[in-house]
Amino acid sequence: MLAPDIAARLKRSPEGLVVAVAQQHDTGEVLMVAWMNDDALEQTLTTGRAVYWSRSRGELWRKGDTSGHVQRVVSVSLDCDGDALLVKVDQTGPACHTGERSCFDAGGDLGAAAGVDAGGGA
Amino acid sequence: MLAPDIAARLKRSPEGLVVAVAQQHDTGEVLMVAWMNDDALEQTLTTGRAVYWSRSRGELWRKGDTSGHVQRVVSVSLDCDGDALLVKVDQTGPACHTGERSCFDAGGDLGAAAGVDAGGGA
Repeated sequence: MLAPDIAARLKRSPEGLVVAVAQQHDTGEVLMVAWMNDDALEQTLTTGRAVYWSRSRGELWRKGDTSGHVQRVVSVSLDCDGDALLVKVDQTGPACHTGERSCFDAGGDLGAAAGVDAGGGA
Repeated sequence: MLAPDIAARLKRSPEGLVVAVAQQHDTGEVLMVAWMNDDALEQTLTTGRAVYWSRSRGELWRKGDTSGHVQRVVSVSLDCDGDALLVKVDQTGPACHTGERSCFDAGGDLGAAAGVDAGGGA
């Protein structure tokens, strides 16, 4: 069971889910976005493997069990208002079911007009 | 109006939203997770500033208009199944309303048991 102090901090969707961003821990690459329910988060926090809730299949999804493309958990952080998780992982092979490393490589760039005068981010 | 070819690729929530991950373009830091409707995405793609849909206020939210902590857009990518956006930005000051640089610094680490035998991610 998910630790009560963590469970109390989650702000879940009507479906009982929190969005999870998976990031390669060393390169910083954002690999994919998925969802976790309490059980998925508990397994992610305790087993060393990233586990999600598959909304399409309606079941827990331990990433890589079918594909071999596992995610070893490095750290998990909750955001300020409790409705998003950042899961730093070590991704084996591609994260995306398309075979691309990142799901955002697969979907691709939308051609934004870049903001000028960025000013160094300070 | 959002370009029809992009609009056709979006898989929106029942509320008409797509989740958006904001990442500092050069350091790779994941700053925050928010939501966009079609108008927010259109403005983000065309104005050089990140614009979200505030679910709590029920209105468009041009990041930084109140706080000064603007996000200059560097690129926007859609994921493989059209329900998540990765927005690479140049963040001025803290991204989080708490004053922390990232909303995940504000929420904090959940103490995951790290996955051993990570194997280098290849």
